Amino acid sequence: MGRIAYVNGRYLPQGQATVSIEDRGYQLGDGVYEVCEVRAGVLIDEARHLARLERSLSELRIAQPLVPGALSLVLREVLTRNKVRDGYVYVQVTRGVAPRDHAFPVPAVRPSLVVTAKAIDPAKGTALAAKGIKVISLPDIRWKRPDIKTINLLPNVLARQAAKEEGAYEAWLIDADGMVTEGAASNAWIVTADKTIVTHQVDQSILRGVTRTTLLDLIAAKGLRLEERRFSLEEAKRATEAFITGATTLVMPVAAIDDVVIGDGKPGALATSLRAQFHNFAKATP
Amino acid sequence: MGRIAYVNGRYLPQGQATVSIEDRGYQLGDGVYEVCEVRAGVLIDEARHLARLERSLSELRIAQPLVPGALSLVLREVLTRNKVRDGYVYVQVTRGVAPRDHAFPVPAVRPSLVVTAKAIDPAKGTALAAKGIKVISLPDIRWKRPDIKTINLLPNVLARQAAKEEGAYEAWLIDADGMVTEGAASNAWIVTADKTIVTHQVDQSILRGVTRTTLLDLIAAKGLRLEERRFSLEEAKRATEAFITGATTLVMPVAAIDDVVIGDGKPGALATSLRAQFHNFAKATP
Repeated sequence: MGRIAYVNGRYLPQGQATVSIEDRGYQLGDGVYEVCEVRAGVLIDEARHLARLERSLSELRIAQPLVPGALSLVLREVLTRNKVRDGYVYVQVTRGVAPRDHAFPVPAVRPSLVVTAKAIDPAKGTALAAKGIKVISLPDIRWKRPDIKTINLLPNVLARQAAKEEGAYEAWLIDADGMVTEGAASNAWIVTADKTIVTHQVDQSILRGVTRTTLLDLIAAKGLRLEERRFSLEEAKRATEAFITGATTLVMPVAAIDDVVIGDGKPGALATSLRAQFHNFAKATP
Repeated sequence: MGRIAYVNGRYLPQGQATVSIEDRGYQLGDGVYEVCEVRAGVLIDEARHLARLERSLSELRIAQPLVPGALSLVLREVLTRNKVRDGYVYVQVTRGVAPRDHAFPVPAVRPSLVVTAKAIDPAKGTALAAKGIKVISLPDIRWKRPDIKTINLLPNVLARQAAKEEGAYEAWLIDADGMVTEGAASNAWIVTADKTIVTHQVDQSILRGVTRTTLLDLIAAKGLRLEERRFSLEEAKRATEAFITGATTLVMPVAAIDDVVIGDGKPGALATSLRAQFHNFAKATP
């Protein structure tokens, strides 16, 4: 069965699903997106993803494409039509179609909305988590507002490609002070020798990951030690454990950073435990 | 008559010209572009624009969409079909259509190529240049490779929108040291009290404008004093003249920066003279 995509009010075979060449997403990168996990047929942390989408749109003054309830219905219809039980749903909103000009169109045009879904075999992530991933470090060359989840992803594209070429899964981005901001498509975490879990505080230099937020709930509920602060690449390389979080990677142990083995080179106990408990704390909505 | 666009080998009515929702330009901003002036029916500095396009593609390891000669033919065909005598031709190339993933598609897919053309009444630019424009200053929040002409233009979009809302034409972007890098869609220039023309040197922090390069030819030919160096916003506000360059704005005098009047608030003599002589030095190719 071919995949079905929702594009501006219509459900279309994905291979025929198109947008105008004058869509501002295509010509100017003027748009945002979300990726929401689907597990056993239900959406995970949908409300947090929709709230973040709303914030991204608001920061860029792009109108909501649909009222929130209607968007939820579309997400479910796309899942149903694609028979996705495990995988993710992808939502992209751009400022819409208008003659090319940097400034916003006047009068405002209707935002463009694209929704797709993809099945992923959960066994793949489980196998990866059992081994742990390798990450490389790269300078953080992104713009100064990565807290907005925009489609200006070229620096992320280049970082992930560089990681892949070095046999790594992710690239950790290092700021001018030698501090780790986050991964190219995930948040970055370490565990110190005294079992304190450390991740970058929320500010304009990182994306506030939904998986990150839910993991903080879990950490608080379990009474684990947590510090939200910057940490350096050097500190990370000396850490007892390291891991990344993201909507499709969930909690993924890091076994090596730049060829430096973390801990004993096996997935850390804390990361493995947090991964196992994650879905007890995430909100599943049918 | 409706406009005609070239999209991946076909000439289509622009209103029906579309690309896949899985074009990497749409989902990841993974592409580049050029805007080339058209004047009296011929292309201005086409070779320099095509050379820069080739460099942008090469920096991102995107394949050439067509051999250079074929691309030149497409540009002319688009101009002819749109009956554009004065205006510009727009060329966009992306890495192509592939299932969404940050890393480059394997095997590589064919790059996507879109070409459009637009007529602009040259009298508009002439009228603007007779008055001079206002620019505002804003922090330069772009990524660290603005020397590549990518479609990741959201910071530029936000800067131009901010300028428009303040009644200005352009925004000059200021780095962490208080230095002017360039405009959101143009290069920035000043003239000092001793009639030295100053513009930012070519490095990774600015786009090497084609109009900038041709203007340097003109400046050298006329034996005018030139310094390619950084200059601060404060120095710019004390300048005798200021102007911007771009493929569609040409040489455009700046009359005010952030409500500070430049010189006597009228277009400077040097900028006006350079604008008048520009097309004697630019290369026109039928």
